[in-house]
Amino acid sequence: MLKPWSEIAPRLVDVAMGRTPADLVIRNGRWVNVYSGEIIPGTDIAISAGRFAYVGPDASHTVGPETKVVDATGRYLVPGLCDGHMHVESGLVTVTEFARAVIPHGTTTMFIDPHEIANVLGLPGVKLMNDEAQSLPINILVQVPSCVPSAPGLERAGAELSADDVRQALSWPNIIGLGEMMNFPGVASNDAKMLAEIAATQAARLTVGGHYASPDLGRAFHAYAAGGPADDHEGTTVDDAIARVRQGMRAMLRLGSAWYDVAAQVKAITERGLDPRNFILCTDDSHSGTLVNDGHMNRVVRHAIAQGLKPVTAIQMATLNTAQHFGLERELGSIAPGRRADLIISSDLAALPVEMVFARGELLAEHGALTAEIPRYAYPDSACNTVRLGKHLEAEDFDIAAPGASEVTARVIGVVENQAPTRALERKLPVKDGIVGMNRADDVCQIALVERHRATGEVVNAFVSGFGYTRDCAMASTVAHDSHHMIVVGTNKRDMALAANRLGEVGGGIVMISEGRELALIELPVAGLMSDERAEIVAGKASRLVEAMRDCGCTLNNAYMQHSLLALVVIPELRISDKGLIDVTRFAETSVLVEE
Amino acid sequence: MLKPWSEIAPRLVDVAMGRTPADLVIRNGRWVNVYSGEIIPGTDIAISAGRFAYVGPDASHTVGPETKVVDATGRYLVPGLCDGHMHVESGLVTVTEFARAVIPHGTTTMFIDPHEIANVLGLPGVKLMNDEAQSLPINILVQVPSCVPSAPGLERAGAELSADDVRQALSWPNIIGLGEMMNFPGVASNDAKMLAEIAATQAARLTVGGHYASPDLGRAFHAYAAGGPADDHEGTTVDDAIARVRQGMRAMLRLGSAWYDVAAQVKAITERGLDPRNFILCTDDSHSGTLVNDGHMNRVVRHAIAQGLKPVTAIQMATLNTAQHFGLERELGSIAPGRRADLIISSDLAALPVEMVFARGELLAEHGALTAEIPRYAYPDSACNTVRLGKHLEAEDFDIAAPGASEVTARVIGVVENQAPTRALERKLPVKDGIVGMNRADDVCQIALVERHRATGEVVNAFVSGFGYTRDCAMASTVAHDSHHMIVVGTNKRDMALAANRLGEVGGGIVMISEGRELALIELPVAGLMSDERAEIVAGKASRLVEAMRDCGCTLNNAYMQHSLLALVVIPELRISDKGLIDVTRFAETSVLVEE
Repeated sequence: MLKPWSEIAPRLVDVAMGRTPADLVIRNGRWVNVYSGEIIPGTDIAISAGRFAYVGPDASHTVGPETKVVDATGRYLVPGLCDGHMHVESGLVTVTEFARAVIPHGTTTMFIDPHEIANVLGLPGVKLMNDEAQSLPINILVQVPSCVPSAPGLERAGAELSADDVRQALSWPNIIGLGEMMNFPGVASNDAKMLAEIAATQAARLTVGGHYASPDLGRAFHAYAAGGPADDHEGTTVDDAIARVRQGMRAMLRLGSAWYDVAAQVKAITERGLDPRNFILCTDDSHSGTLVNDGHMNRVVRHAIAQGLKPVTAIQMATLNTAQHFGLERELGSIAPGRRADLIISSDLAALPVEMVFARGELLAEHGALTAEIPRYAYPDSACNTVRLGKHLEAEDFDIAAPGASEVTARVIGVVENQAPTRALERKLPVKDGIVGMNRADDVCQIALVERHRATGEVVNAFVSGFGYTRDCAMASTVAHDSHHMIVVGTNKRDMALAANRLGEVGGGIVMISEGRELALIELPVAGLMSDERAEIVAGKASRLVEAMRDCGCTLNNAYMQHSLLALVVIPELRISDKGLIDVTRFAETSVLVEE
Repeated sequence: MLKPWSEIAPRLVDVAMGRTPADLVIRNGRWVNVYSGEIIPGTDIAISAGRFAYVGPDASHTVGPETKVVDATGRYLVPGLCDGHMHVESGLVTVTEFARAVIPHGTTTMFIDPHEIANVLGLPGVKLMNDEAQSLPINILVQVPSCVPSAPGLERAGAELSADDVRQALSWPNIIGLGEMMNFPGVASNDAKMLAEIAATQAARLTVGGHYASPDLGRAFHAYAAGGPADDHEGTTVDDAIARVRQGMRAMLRLGSAWYDVAAQVKAITERGLDPRNFILCTDDSHSGTLVNDGHMNRVVRHAIAQGLKPVTAIQMATLNTAQHFGLERELGSIAPGRRADLIISSDLAALPVEMVFARGELLAEHGALTAEIPRYAYPDSACNTVRLGKHLEAEDFDIAAPGASEVTARVIGVVENQAPTRALERKLPVKDGIVGMNRADDVCQIALVERHRATGEVVNAFVSGFGYTRDCAMASTVAHDSHHMIVVGTNKRDMALAANRLGEVGGGIVMISEGRELALIELPVAGLMSDERAEIVAGKASRLVEAMRDCGCTLNNAYMQHSLLALVVIPELRISDKGLIDVTRFAETSVLVEE
């Protein structure tokens, strides 16, 4: 267990003076000094009690008979990388499995917003992930989700967090601030709950995370800044980044599995000459496949350097800048006395191969492989029985009735490739025996939102276009942002019922059924959101799912993400929720069938 | 009374949106943006409730019928300047009078260490200055003095602060951290009290001020950094600055009345290319004359720019960098939404003429003149009756006896011009009637430390050389670092007695007597350290004192400062304390007369 600097200072002083031997000494490396911006060759590091005790030209005097010595001749000593904003749940694995996956990539600190589990399990869910975070050998600081549910009135999630809940959670250990304040219209319109959450965070001297997902840099943007959020990761253009920094917010530049927001925004530094200290790198959302195949923050830093940043500047943006932003500069984010001994050894600053990873002075990974024992983390049953369907679903549960008609005009959710917003389409559809039919030729199939938190047995049915399914099939997922009910999309109602029931059986996840046969399944038993299997295994299952979708005719890029976002009733134009079909341009319910 | 951002955010949001008019709008200035490092022309600022509500291209929508509008066309909008480390007592005036003097120079934030009053009045003295600080319209944040007394065992000051006292004070409002940890050998040797004070400060999430006054950048320096101090203002060379920044400490570059440490150290940025973000400007000690004639932080910023720094970089070093260091970045140090509306309007960034000064949205000064009403601050009687001599002193109290001898060898404190260390000299002196005489021809006169805190009537006598007094005269001062007893230096014992008694009468200060006549007097009734008169008046009296010293033959540069440092028993080689003559090379008492 890491002791605070204040408690261990006498020992660090003794080590620096040579009165007590260090636990670990790393010799003759090139110190990437994120404070001075220098690379300092010939640097020795002495570590004691999990913290840096001495960093300088010669640590010989700290080496005792029991001291472990690592020769780093000519290699770079880089502070452990920090992810300034991210959601573990996006990896479809627990915090433990996420950490196992990213430690070999050199990530030693993550600022996580357990927003998804909060929508399923509420404050107890946040607490579970915060507890798990503290069990791990790297730094995983937790933000309290600010907007649960995302769209009060338009949906009923598994749980709600009140401003009082948020205030309570802010007092827990390991809590670092408020999670992304997504309700930016609420801030600009002085929504009392949103302002109360921000005020509680400021009063606790913690950091208010921002999320301003709008291109409008006028009054609403200025009002948002005046409301208190201290950072934002939703910028996409160079002007977005500049505007945020000018207003005293940190511009968090994001490279996730599906977010590519670094290249454009980093030009604020490389071309427009802004002071880089207020820029931070983050991932926001990484799929297991990205973690397994491409990396994590090392991927982001490498990418940022490839965009023309000086390596030490890019590294500052993933270490010191992040730590300073969260008030943790004296604790982590640099190789300097007193700080947690989190560092990477690498032989190249641009390619950033991660050869050794230490956290709190312990060697955790070498040459891409985890060397530390990190046991599986067991979630309680209460977190693993969250898919409550209330009944066995039948094909008829997905019927959309239009008694007496022979044809109707239906509102259809139009999926747009590579875009989060959907389009509100209208399509003529046939009616047979009083039931509206689909139109596979015109790529119109059914979507259902199956209530899964309270076992009400309710199913909301509507139409969707854009997936391009050509076979009898259905895909169901309990990852259904942000309320995380179950979304089922299918061309065949029997397959839809099978898919939904299957997820009920396994406690949540994602499944693809075709003609009664299960083509792919990712079990996500923890809150219906996360697996406690290895990221490699989950990534493999996710690959099979993508293949299965393709086999059924869906060639959409990131089709699974599109599926899981169709209940996100804060993004225009048309979405589905447990309340019905939602016209997000009006923030109001609408009918599936257009009244003629 | 300024309300916290968290409380006033709804109003700031309303102003930014144009729903509520601003109190003050400043139009069309050039925004010195310390976050981005840019100068942004055509900027409007809207201020409400003492905080910035909107900073951007057009604040028309925030102007209502009652809104005061200031046209700043073409002029620079600079954040109010911050002094990162200083002692108000060095100005010989109260906090209020200090503030009155520096506000017209654009200082709106000071981080003060009331170390001197603490040595006289202890924790209640710190509280008095902290209370006074909070009564003022600018930001005066207080550090709890860490080393009271400076040299336990070698002196008995008016008061002591225990680690528990420090811990208690750290919980007071307006306290920002621990004052300069001067006992750097104590930190390196794991002195329990020093480490306990640092630990208490870290536990309170406050900033530990450093003071590493040694050229040794080896183990002791590294151990000091490992002990926890987060900044240091004692560096003098470029290597000092670089070493501090590399270790994750802020390098505070000092330009005081008698400190000239910016020019050499700023080369770390201008020539060695270090990241400037971890450099901070400060004054440490400013005499009233400097404040009246030369300026305060504007003088430091101007000087830093003259050394080759980009103006915006120098300004960052006196605004954002300072605020970030103390964890106050969201509160002050920039012109950005939510922050205290502290700013300067200036027509030139290099010369930095301070044309208007606003703090918390109020105009406080214009063209060098204070426009705000700042009432005199009354200290309680307990703080104004601190010179307790216990008896009327006579010439005989200054006798140094050597019964039976005709000549002796005496240890003599050798003052060295422009240096703080003294030399331990030995001089042969005549003895008449059993009393050792002085030797004016050889520049050896007497020094006495008169106990003044507990009315013990004790006088410690010794010899000093270097002032060059050629007339019968004596100078006495109750500013006598750090214990602040009374130091009397004289060539004539009757004048010495008169000088000491005069300070007893007026409650402390500095006086020069020659042949029974008072040549100059600065009354410092508050703790014997500070006047509550205007800085101009005190500066005038100080000028007369310097003249009087010259009239008596003393041509030493900064002679008054040399006088007041002769009891500073932490700086080698020879000093005087209430315990006797102190050999600071051995940290032990020694005898005035050398045993032959």
